[in-house]
Amino acid sequence: MNISALQKARAAYQPKLPQGLRGNVEIKEGEPTQSVDNQEEIKELFPNTYGMPLVEFIPTDTKKEYAPINIGVILSGGQAPGGHNVICGLFDELKKQNPNNKLYGFLMGPGGLVDHQYLEITSEVVEEYRNTGGFDMIGSGRTKLETEDQFESGLKIINELDIKAVVIIGGDDSNTNACMLAEYYAAKNTGVSVIGCPKTIDGDLKNEQIETSFGFDTACKTYSELIGNIQRDANSARKYWHFIKLMGRSASHIALECALQTHANITIISEEVEAKNQTLDDIVSYIANIVAKRATDGNNFGTVLIPEGLIEFVPAIKRLIAELNDLLSTEKAQTETENLNNEDTFAWVKKNVSAENLKTLESLPEAVAMQLALERDPHGNVQVSLIETEKLLSEMVGKKLAAWKTEGKFAGKFAAQHHFFGYEGRCAAPSNYDADYCYALGTSAAQLVANGKTGYMAIVKNTTAPAAEWIAGGVPITMMMNMERRNGKMKPVIRKALVCLDGAPFKTFVANRDDWAVNTHYFYPGPIQYWGPTEVCDPCTKTLALEQSK
Amino acid sequence: MNISALQKARAAYQPKLPQGLRGNVEIKEGEPTQSVDNQEEIKELFPNTYGMPLVEFIPTDTKKEYAPINIGVILSGGQAPGGHNVICGLFDELKKQNPNNKLYGFLMGPGGLVDHQYLEITSEVVEEYRNTGGFDMIGSGRTKLETEDQFESGLKIINELDIKAVVIIGGDDSNTNACMLAEYYAAKNTGVSVIGCPKTIDGDLKNEQIETSFGFDTACKTYSELIGNIQRDANSARKYWHFIKLMGRSASHIALECALQTHANITIISEEVEAKNQTLDDIVSYIANIVAKRATDGNNFGTVLIPEGLIEFVPAIKRLIAELNDLLSTEKAQTETENLNNEDTFAWVKKNVSAENLKTLESLPEAVAMQLALERDPHGNVQVSLIETEKLLSEMVGKKLAAWKTEGKFAGKFAAQHHFFGYEGRCAAPSNYDADYCYALGTSAAQLVANGKTGYMAIVKNTTAPAAEWIAGGVPITMMMNMERRNGKMKPVIRKALVCLDGAPFKTFVANRDDWAVNTHYFYPGPIQYWGPTEVCDPCTKTLALEQSK
Repeated sequence: MNISALQKARAAYQPKLPQGLRGNVEIKEGEPTQSVDNQEEIKELFPNTYGMPLVEFIPTDTKKEYAPINIGVILSGGQAPGGHNVICGLFDELKKQNPNNKLYGFLMGPGGLVDHQYLEITSEVVEEYRNTGGFDMIGSGRTKLETEDQFESGLKIINELDIKAVVIIGGDDSNTNACMLAEYYAAKNTGVSVIGCPKTIDGDLKNEQIETSFGFDTACKTYSELIGNIQRDANSARKYWHFIKLMGRSASHIALECALQTHANITIISEEVEAKNQTLDDIVSYIANIVAKRATDGNNFGTVLIPEGLIEFVPAIKRLIAELNDLLSTEKAQTETENLNNEDTFAWVKKNVSAENLKTLESLPEAVAMQLALERDPHGNVQVSLIETEKLLSEMVGKKLAAWKTEGKFAGKFAAQHHFFGYEGRCAAPSNYDADYCYALGTSAAQLVANGKTGYMAIVKNTTAPAAEWIAGGVPITMMMNMERRNGKMKPVIRKALVCLDGAPFKTFVANRDDWAVNTHYFYPGPIQYWGPTEVCDPCTKTLALEQSK
Repeated sequence: MNISALQKARAAYQPKLPQGLRGNVEIKEGEPTQSVDNQEEIKELFPNTYGMPLVEFIPTDTKKEYAPINIGVILSGGQAPGGHNVICGLFDELKKQNPNNKLYGFLMGPGGLVDHQYLEITSEVVEEYRNTGGFDMIGSGRTKLETEDQFESGLKIINELDIKAVVIIGGDDSNTNACMLAEYYAAKNTGVSVIGCPKTIDGDLKNEQIETSFGFDTACKTYSELIGNIQRDANSARKYWHFIKLMGRSASHIALECALQTHANITIISEEVEAKNQTLDDIVSYIANIVAKRATDGNNFGTVLIPEGLIEFVPAIKRLIAELNDLLSTEKAQTETENLNNEDTFAWVKKNVSAENLKTLESLPEAVAMQLALERDPHGNVQVSLIETEKLLSEMVGKKLAAWKTEGKFAGKFAAQHHFFGYEGRCAAPSNYDADYCYALGTSAAQLVANGKTGYMAIVKNTTAPAAEWIAGGVPITMMMNMERRNGKMKPVIRKALVCLDGAPFKTFVANRDDWAVNTHYFYPGPIQYWGPTEVCDPCTKTLALEQSK
């Protein structure tokens, strides 16, 4: 294997397991569960997978015999550090249960199940990927498993390979779909179980049962390393404001965590913007005021963290986007704009939106307005990630400051640099936390299968304690569901966790932000360390630590 | 001190010193030296600092007494990881020589000497910055020390603080100016000596005497961490080509080193582009061909590394820029364009450039052409760093591939993501290599001062061996000089080291690039480690290792 020195050394790391998963394992079942909301509807939609108990794995002296089984595994959606370790944990536990067990990986995401693309994950494969980042072992993809045709096509290859269970590693949507698949296979008495695993760097798949989604830890630490480095630069050169956009489709958990790790001067939290009904101009004024305040101290530099999804959380823009999404999906729009060029389509849009939303549209720089009005993803939605919010904001801040300068309200200098961090951290090698957490999740998934469970997500709790004290088990996916409107229809979905404005992480941020804004209290977290002192290598995110310390 | 866990733990790291600098130190002098070229001119310009011998520090049993002295230190130009450790080494050695010695830091670069802005660097200050990145201890700046007025103003504060020597930490230009200052103070018999230190992440300050400039190691490792992460992502999602621009004003050392560390699919080396007289279209075709070749294997993804200064190395564009620089500095231009808006200025430029250069100008996308023609830095030069070469190239590659598609020569997909890494690494915490190297350079500088040297640069050689075997000493700055045309005048300057097309690093790259282009042999170097196995934490750059292994 021709690999980097770090990969080689890191491959030897043996992830720590909770006590309950180390030796012989027994399952402990709790009381029947209820979904978090809309119990009747969810129960009706999931008659076979509703109401099951929470389960926990505990050590036992009794050695259990395991009949041989085959399992399939799928990586779904965006990459997150630690995905390979979930598969390694799953593999090791499978082989421990019975050396004849087999693990199949479906290739390039859920599409691999539908299209029958797979490989057997042997020990040779696994050894190459221990403690590595990325999803390149079997690839990932964004195909949504939703239709009966897909379920049936999957069943064919499942039967062909004599697969007993499919483990789907994904975010909230993928796990919702995992549960639909579980329900479908249960209803048909196929004997095939489906287990989910909580993945996403966005950190928005968490609730009473799931402490955190894997990958959030490593991604935030990688972004914070870079933000810290940039802050050192800002504080040394003293001449630039750095506007840094951070990946994370809707929730602002990444921005918040990075703020807590780096003490950036300014961090915008989308959920707060929405709750306070702020306009883009409110945000711009907030930033410009801090720039001006720092300038009076001679500090013409600083950092601004911006969550990727911000635009959609500005209520006025959200209303605009909602109308645009509806408007452009109408038959009228499709007929009338079919042969128009961009400019004419834009004119058509302006003529057809409501007066209020037209005003919002026209308040935006034209390039951004056109992006909003014209560019859609394959699902017909605005492509938020294409909007360069970091440049949009710095441009608007620059204009405001220029106006203030002529009014004598600003005497400083303002020059900006822009950054967008996403791909830089999604595939980083997992931190010790994520390496351990993922390995335990994979082990837990194998135990859920061995215990005949379906429609469950593997979970590991108490992860702010040393790994030995972690508690592994499973949660019925239906327990985390409620009904939400999606594309105009009510659907059962796992409730997405946005930043909670009453939560300890946000409150801690609020308690400090005025200080961080004006003073320069930068933290420099540095690169993720694997072999150093435990206080450097092993801590979980500030978000999780604060949430658990309540 | 409220600092991150890593900063705290890393502060305790004791940089390793060469044997020759550990205990009592003796100076060993070599033969008189000559400048690398234009000996007569350089000798005439530097009568007091020309021809001095190389010196080396060796251990001795004799304990030397040191009379108390004060030293000033200046950080000049762009940040580079390890600058603080140079100061720490200087400080520790000074205090070892005589506890009454004092170290002053001039603030915000050479300007601090001229404007008399300084602070005393006490042990409290030093303790806060051991093994940290950035230049924030005393700040840095880009004021050029060139005029007699500046030298005289500096002398005032030097005398006021009873300073015996000034240590200037900077790149090639800053060290050239350090030598001019040394010569001036020597000619005036001021008794003030000036010592330089080789700093720059660009890696272009190196020669027979200087193995590498500090900061290059850490910056390249940080960028390679990110490139590796992006490659994992590319290889997992299999849908994007990532165009990654890397800081480095003119030389391509950073891009080359990152290529050697990560095995990116494509790396453009400016020096080769120039040597082969390539056009922008040649580069675009080269990239498009590899994209097409990979597409036939189903690999619609990859990475392209682009050195920041590329544009200026494309001969046709270089000629264009040279004419633009001359043209726009004429009085005629200044008078005639004074009241014109951008569009009219652009038209004026097009009317006034030569036919050949007009053709080159018009071959560029208009936005880029306008940037070239209109935006200048304070010295009147094209602002190369503003040109988004990574987007320019991907746009042109996309167009070419679209044309090939209609011709049936390309059947793949091409979608691009863009990155520019510079500020992400300039202020990273120094790697073990840079931490040790810088500390040794600072210690060496203090020894040069103690031995009454001026016009020298501190050097440390044999750094591919364990630190104990490193050889510390000094090189007369005049030895590295030659005469070059700068802004129309012949000037004595330190010869800048571009990528040597006959050198081992480039040859190694060439021997592998066709393989790396088509196959996916990505290396994932991971984040810089401080406490792990030595093969992970301590290696120098591939560039240096290859250069020294010859």
